[in-house]
Amino acid sequence: MKQIDFIKEIDKIKYIQRKTKLFNSNRPENDAEHSWHLAMMTIVLAQYSDTPIDVLKVLKMVLIHDIVEIDAGDTFIYDTEKNHNNTTEELAAAKRIFGLLPSTQAEELIALWLEFEEGKTNEAKFAKSMDRLEPLLQNISNNGGTWSEFGVDYQKVYDKKKAIKEGSSTLWNYAENLLNESVKNGILRKLD
Amino acid sequence: MKQIDFIKEIDKIKYIQRKTKLFNSNRPENDAEHSWHLAMMTIVLAQYSDTPIDVLKVLKMVLIHDIVEIDAGDTFIYDTEKNHNNTTEELAAAKRIFGLLPSTQAEELIALWLEFEEGKTNEAKFAKSMDRLEPLLQNISNNGGTWSEFGVDYQKVYDKKKAIKEGSSTLWNYAENLLNESVKNGILRKLD
Repeated sequence: MKQIDFIKEIDKIKYIQRKTKLFNSNRPENDAEHSWHLAMMTIVLAQYSDTPIDVLKVLKMVLIHDIVEIDAGDTFIYDTEKNHNNTTEELAAAKRIFGLLPSTQAEELIALWLEFEEGKTNEAKFAKSMDRLEPLLQNISNNGGTWSEFGVDYQKVYDKKKAIKEGSSTLWNYAENLLNESVKNGILRKLD
Repeated sequence: MKQIDFIKEIDKIKYIQRKTKLFNSNRPENDAEHSWHLAMMTIVLAQYSDTPIDVLKVLKMVLIHDIVEIDAGDTFIYDTEKNHNNTTEELAAAKRIFGLLPSTQAEELIALWLEFEEGKTNEAKFAKSMDRLEPLLQNISNNGGTWSEFGVDYQKVYDKKKAIKEGSSTLWNYAENLLNESVKNGILRKLD
């Protein structure tokens, strides 16, 4: 059964560490934990999408979105040298890993991953909102977290986080307030 | 926003260690990783359900099924003193943790968790198949894994794993073959 080979292979995602730490913690989050958390956020926050969304599709997207990192590794969102977007390396990874599945399933999941990466459909926009919101909440719980650790200033954070607005104006209002509070609390630095 | 309190609280599931180890590994799996893996298995194996299932509902079930362990802890499936089933402690945990959500959502997720625990609907049966199949595959990859570690014999394993049959005869055939092979390979002991 081809699916079993895939199921075994994707276990490796549990070893891919993100830069962001767990809530109130110094322990880096791994991609399996991150993907689970985005799925849970999707379940409880879907009602705030600005447009009707197919929740099953969003769940599949957030569950699979980082599987390519098994081959391509995690790229830090504020990395200035490497672009976070859909690299050749990630596309090859998608083809190899999803390609372990029977062809119809492989095609479906590669297409879904590409749709997420392109971020144009309502589902992809909402999935990306989740992907931006989780580390924001984590960093705040960790006194600035990766923002402090890597000296990322307000404007750079704002530019990445505004993707939340594409999925949900309610969540964006919430997130924008958190960013402003973070500046006031001194855990996010605003350059003059 | 009440959902945010819930999102922060459930981060604790990442610290709940299971007895079962990752594939080809000595590192215990945590509940977030386990839940993510069951969700991925649901996506690629749903077609083998013996009855039509609402995949979105199964995904929600497997994603939330271990959240109660934040309060109640993980009970090893072969624990002979403590029953794995729906304890008073787990019900209190469900009420407390899902109770952080707005009431309609809290009620939905508590009901969904109870439906999984009771295992009577098609979705609950398939979700439980996933929950039994993952550690079976992990134990085989680890030369017997928890079966060897805790001296669990074939009959005890068989009695737990046959729940897979309730969800999918195809997956049960596959699993039963694996159990028989495990006996032949000497990683699962069959008593006379």
